[in-house]
Amino acid sequence: MSKTPAETGEDHLIATYFRPLARHPGALGLADDAATLTPPHGFDLVLTKDALIAGVHFFPDDPPDAIARKALRVNLSDLAAKGTRPAGFLLALALPDTVTGEWLTSFARGLGEDAQTYACPLLGGDTVRTPGPLMVSITALGFVPQGKMVQRKGAKPGDKVIVTGTIGDAAFGLELRNNAGALALDPKLREHLLNRYLLPQPRNTIASLVLAYASAAMDISDGLAGDLSKLCRASGVSAEIDVALVPLSDAARAALAANPAVVETILSGGDDYEIACTVPATRSKAFIAAAQSAGVQATEIGDVVAGEGAPRFLRDGKPLALSKTSFSHF
Amino acid sequence: MSKTPAETGEDHLIATYFRPLARHPGALGLADDAATLTPPHGFDLVLTKDALIAGVHFFPDDPPDAIARKALRVNLSDLAAKGTRPAGFLLALALPDTVTGEWLTSFARGLGEDAQTYACPLLGGDTVRTPGPLMVSITALGFVPQGKMVQRKGAKPGDKVIVTGTIGDAAFGLELRNNAGALALDPKLREHLLNRYLLPQPRNTIASLVLAYASAAMDISDGLAGDLSKLCRASGVSAEIDVALVPLSDAARAALAANPAVVETILSGGDDYEIACTVPATRSKAFIAAAQSAGVQATEIGDVVAGEGAPRFLRDGKPLALSKTSFSHF
Repeated sequence: MSKTPAETGEDHLIATYFRPLARHPGALGLADDAATLTPPHGFDLVLTKDALIAGVHFFPDDPPDAIARKALRVNLSDLAAKGTRPAGFLLALALPDTVTGEWLTSFARGLGEDAQTYACPLLGGDTVRTPGPLMVSITALGFVPQGKMVQRKGAKPGDKVIVTGTIGDAAFGLELRNNAGALALDPKLREHLLNRYLLPQPRNTIASLVLAYASAAMDISDGLAGDLSKLCRASGVSAEIDVALVPLSDAARAALAANPAVVETILSGGDDYEIACTVPATRSKAFIAAAQSAGVQATEIGDVVAGEGAPRFLRDGKPLALSKTSFSHF
Repeated sequence: MSKTPAETGEDHLIATYFRPLARHPGALGLADDAATLTPPHGFDLVLTKDALIAGVHFFPDDPPDAIARKALRVNLSDLAAKGTRPAGFLLALALPDTVTGEWLTSFARGLGEDAQTYACPLLGGDTVRTPGPLMVSITALGFVPQGKMVQRKGAKPGDKVIVTGTIGDAAFGLELRNNAGALALDPKLREHLLNRYLLPQPRNTIASLVLAYASAAMDISDGLAGDLSKLCRASGVSAEIDVALVPLSDAARAALAANPAVVETILSGGDDYEIACTVPATRSKAFIAAAQSAGVQATEIGDVVAGEGAPRFLRDGKPLALSKTSFSHF
């Protein structure tokens, strides 16, 4: 084990690629040991942290700007599902020797563009060398009115279960990325699925609606079935989901038509980064309409019911048995 | 690239090893997607992030509890140097397949004990598998009265340069860890140096004094010479340091007596995790006395002077040329 003597290496790297992104005054130009943030009075801080590793959470040869965007977006997705406005983020980046200046330029560009789009500025971080795979660890911060963060806990029997966007696309995209011949679909549909895996679309535009309407919420990162199970467990309820109501893209619909068994992929596949939430039945239509106005499709897929444990997925009124309910690394 | 289907793997790991540590109510038992923290009115949030990688920042066979403590302490050290009270931390842990339950038990024990000792509770995080080396990335949060965070910027000509503790021990400890025969010292002195490398002693007990007295401060993580250079650059000043005043442990003193060339190791070696700060000359003695009362040795080693660039290190009144001034990974 050794360290390389060189005064300006890390400082130079930070100054070249990341200082231009650090426009928030609290970032102190990334030239101090810590960043500061002045919390607005009456707000809670919301904190989330997701780490992504090359070969596990993304492909080492994914475009660097997409890797950066994904790393930030999976964290933004957590903030959105908690009804929270982004405040900024910290970045830890572990770089193997093989990383080039070109790679870093593209990575920083993607990160900077998304930081601006989502109003979530870079505040600070750490850059280190690794003999292993590239790793991006992001801590994102948000603000939410005091005591109001939307939790997994809070769903009540009678609430409607609602999801944003379409479900299952990213899991199909991962399948295609692993095996280009996995699904017999036309090129446009394949591209849609590949993009959905490569680049999550976090639903931050409706975070304020989640805050106003949802009794419980989380983002779907490990699969609809498994994540709904977690929400139900935290809330001490169960749910009944009508599989026919689960919103599908044209591409997922085509894949399902070709092979009904892929319903499992749709319900259990990871990386959707849509929001699953529960909303009191009397307010569900208003939430859906407001989300629509904000440009986000939201769809009722079932009901919260009394009981405990995993939600039941019903197809034609009959329970669907899933062989696995979500992805886990362990 | 694949993910392992298994619903409860990561949840189980978190519940078993880390939930017992998450006693802060805002951690929500680590059973939600985010944590909350209510900032006290009139305070700024201070944020810092340090990532540690096995084989780079610690030895893979270091005791797991020491790895956990070091990962937390290097972040606590940043908070201390910024005059900040710890508020909590988030942990991203990337685990290779080889990690055992025994390892995790020890890691979590060390982490939990330090979280309690330093009043810095675990708030949340992420646990992932890695095909590479073990990685611990911690984001630590603190609170400081609004606008008062002690920065690298702020040192003024005439201020005294002060360091806490003793300098250079950890660099000797790393040398001994790499090569047991590196220094001819008696076993007790060797053990002192090895421990100083293994387990930093962040100076959080005097954070409030740094806040009250220091015009500028940072923790010494990459070597006294290099880190003082950074502080001087940020402040637009230079400094003159009397090498004879740099506080040494008995072990470092013995190593220096045996070989005067190791002055380079003392001044440029990393991992001290002491505080270097500047204090107006009229208040320097009061700061040192107050630190002493809090159990922390603080020593004047020189003066801030007008000018730009790296501080000059004087031995017997003559400038000492250093071949390198700090450690960097790049």
